[in-house]
Amino acid sequence: MEDLDRPYEGAFVDGVHRFALRVYFEDTDAGGVVYYANYLRFLERARSDMLRALGIDQRGALERGEGVYAVARVEIQYRASARLDDALSIVSEVREIRAASCVIQQRVIRGREILADAMVTVAFLSAEGRPRRQPRAWVAAFEQVKKGSAE
Amino acid sequence: MEDLDRPYEGAFVDGVHRFALRVYFEDTDAGGVVYYANYLRFLERARSDMLRALGIDQRGALERGEGVYAVARVEIQYRASARLDDALSIVSEVREIRAASCVIQQRVIRGREILADAMVTVAFLSAEGRPRRQPRAWVAAFEQVKKGSAE
Amino acid sequence: MEDLDRPYEGAFVDGVHRFALRVYFEDTDAGGVVYYANYLRFLERARSDMLRALGIDQRGALERGEGVYAVARVEIQYRASARLDDALSIVSEVREIRAASCVIQQRVIRGREILADAMVTVAFLSAEGRPRRQPRAWVAAFEQVKKGSAE
Amino acid sequence: MEDLDRPYEGAFVDGVHRFALRVYFEDTDAGGVVYYANYLRFLERARSDMLRALGIDQRGALERGEGVYAVARVEIQYRASARLDDALSIVSEVREIRAASCVIQQRVIRGREILADAMVTVAFLSAEGRPRRQPRAWVAAFEQVKKGSAE
Repeated sequence: MEDLDRPYEGAFVDGVHRFALRVYFEDTDAGGVVYYANYLRFLERARSDMLRALGIDQRGALERGEGVYAVARVEIQYRASARLDDALSIVSEVREIRAASCVIQQRVIRGREILADAMVTVAFLSAEGRPRRQPRAWVAAFEQVKKGSAE
Repeated sequence: MEDLDRPYEGAFVDGVHRFALRVYFEDTDAGGVVYYANYLRFLERARSDMLRALGIDQRGALERGEGVYAVARVEIQYRASARLDDALSIVSEVREIRAASCVIQQRVIRGREILADAMVTVAFLSAEGRPRRQPRAWVAAFEQVKKGSAE
Repeated sequence: MEDLDRPYEGAFVDGVHRFALRVYFEDTDAGGVVYYANYLRFLERARSDMLRALGIDQRGALERGEGVYAVARVEIQYRASARLDDALSIVSEVREIRAASCVIQQRVIRGREILADAMVTVAFLSAEGRPRRQPRAWVAAFEQVKKGSAE
Repeated sequence: MEDLDRPYEGAFVDGVHRFALRVYFEDTDAGGVVYYANYLRFLERARSDMLRALGIDQRGALERGEGVYAVARVEIQYRASARLDDALSIVSEVREIRAASCVIQQRVIRGREILADAMVTVAFLSAEGRPRRQPRAWVAAFEQVKKGSAE
């Protein structure tokens, strides 16, 4: 029972973060496929899980007014449609680490097929919404992971 | 890696279905808590998972035009708020089984605390949207589960 | 052009609040109809608009830490389905006014047909999430409107 | 009352489509601003309204199995955050018209400030999900509008 009450968590494998999810009715639209904006919800779930896996406490930082990650840019290609009940994986790789932002490549896959391919820039913002240097420990964690994926 | 790429699935324990999930940014609103309509998304995820656990193929039935479950009535009490990053469980019990509908009690819990308590009536509808008898095998599956929870 | 850039606003007619909206792809699901949780989003849009029409500044109250309305209870019957492109109206009437909460009846209609009928209890909460007396001026505004609808 | 029950509709002004909307609780997240994926919902509302303004019946085409527009690519820059209660406008211009797709530039503005700037490629797909030539009359309507915006 304990396991049943533990939400799914993804993990890094060789510097690449993997996160699985199921498509529910809420994700689909009258076209019978996943609504295009909902892929961005999937990507954010994976990024939040990635931060958790790195030991980064987003909610704590938000509540203490230290800052929050906000998306600054998304470039996404939709190649094929996901449908109700599909088992998808979000595969994320840190591509670039700057002082106040990161670039992350995120792919939505179903088995071996890439359904969507995105490049996402997240910026760290102060409570007032201004760009802010990411905490040193967080940058170190990203560097560690990026190195893992390059090897 | 295989496990990482398998989405979470809930299960029945003594006739009671348990389904865990994490609260992400998409679920919250500017009040800092989960937006009230999103609890209904959580409840539907759990119900869909429950049907899968019972061997009921919703997508297949939908695609073959055999029918689809639609919610006919919801009564929900919100008792306490869920917040970003919370680990929640949806606990569902089949309360009543009729020819063309079921009543399911669903609770959203965080640890031992009940955050929301809902009674949901789902009706089986034909492709044209009219009430329709639930397939015999599905009713049998519900009966089986209901007996388990009563014992 | 000025009008084009002014979002829709509903209004009270004889104490009854009317609010129109269009169904977009985002609102529908693979069943071809509006997803059941999304009716609650529609209801909240109408309630927020109702508060604005009464001169109640929700965002200001939230930002000044004075409190926020949270839904305490929803009872909703789904009678017929809304579909892509439908023009809907949300018709809201204040039914009960208590010290720290209100009960509002809200109907989703399409032409003369009632698609959903809801009774919603909203509670006023402090920044800490505890029930709190509604501001006097707000209660007065609700009383005024309720009287209008009873006449 | 008639007007109250008519949902908002945008329109073309000199070949540029304008569409206004209000930010509600559903659109925001715990960071206090509009959730990044929800801007894509706003963009789609504006595109659907744009098609309606051009006399294109999306729902009819979908129901008759003639085809549906699907987003093939989005590139979006988030420059500043929208907040609860903000009045926003979506400003859309057709940039390119190809046989089976269009490129549309869409900006989210608040007063004179650009909050987000997007380039969206929509592809026309058959019921089976394959790229398909857009109906001739639709292309003509797009051409007409594009000419208007270039002048």
